[in-house]
Amino acid sequence: MVRILGVDPGSVRTGIGIVDADATGRCTHVHHEALTVGGDDDFPRRLKAIFDRLGALIERYRPQEIAIERVFVAKNPDSALKLGQARGAAICAVVARELPVHEYAPMQVKNAVVGRGVADKTQVQHMVGVLLGLKQKLQPDAADALAVAITHAHSRTLAERTGVLASTLLRRRR
Amino acid sequence: MVRILGVDPGSVRTGIGIVDADATGRCTHVHHEALTVGGDDDFPRRLKAIFDRLGALIERYRPQEIAIERVFVAKNPDSALKLGQARGAAICAVVARELPVHEYAPMQVKNAVVGRGVADKTQVQHMVGVLLGLKQKLQPDAADALAVAITHAHSRTLAERTGVLASTLLRRRR
Repeated sequence: MVRILGVDPGSVRTGIGIVDADATGRCTHVHHEALTVGGDDDFPRRLKAIFDRLGALIERYRPQEIAIERVFVAKNPDSALKLGQARGAAICAVVARELPVHEYAPMQVKNAVVGRGVADKTQVQHMVGVLLGLKQKLQPDAADALAVAITHAHSRTLAERTGVLASTLLRRRR
Repeated sequence: MVRILGVDPGSVRTGIGIVDADATGRCTHVHHEALTVGGDDDFPRRLKAIFDRLGALIERYRPQEIAIERVFVAKNPDSALKLGQARGAAICAVVARELPVHEYAPMQVKNAVVGRGVADKTQVQHMVGVLLGLKQKLQPDAADALAVAITHAHSRTLAERTGVLASTLLRRRR
């Protein structure tokens, strides 16, 4: 059994999901939330809120591995900068505790959860609920965070069989 | 006397400068360095290197206030994302220790150090050396970090006289 924390960082809302995965890659729901850090907060406070909350959840739930979705920046440089800062805060909370971070492309996440790489957000939300046996409708960012955690659960099970891990963040040299 | 840490974050090189400022805004050099985190390091390790090194310098030199240059993103979204992640890591190191962060526009920094808002990098490098009485030529990112620290020293002295602080990061609501 391995406990996996999935993170979907954003400058306003950060999705956080935690699952336990067994040796076959089957996942059990542990925790999920969508952390909103916008509103009246000034900007360093937002980063601190992400950093502190993720840190507190790591201390509480003790995940062993972390998964995060790779970003394909579609929008303008300004929003890319803001998103980058939020990702930086989230990743710092994780690496400050010496935990390994695995990064997956959006297509890998959709493939793992919905079964095809071109699924939309609603399908991801729905399938995450089905896979984890959740009754309530998931907030979209929380669903994305659980989805990337599930993706890593599948990927690491496959890696144990094949010796090849599909995540790229810790292996690719940039 | 107040100790000010200036930071110029980058995804490859982060400039760090520390000065002591007296009540008139006059600065004395304490420390500077250009932290290189590129090369073979994978990407979360780079953020950790920034976070850890800044944290260690804060513990060692105990600055009371932090200044950082505001970014005007000129380049593409991909480099904006990388820069944002580095900034996020730097700001987390600071806010994790409950220190106030002040942000200055590049034009404010040039104005404070060179005396006009359209100076080039070489002029900033040169004037930082003159203002701090340094003999050696400064590495450009370290010079930028010292420059933003000096800018904050001037700005806070002016603020004590006028009641208006020129930095924006902690006051502007986004």
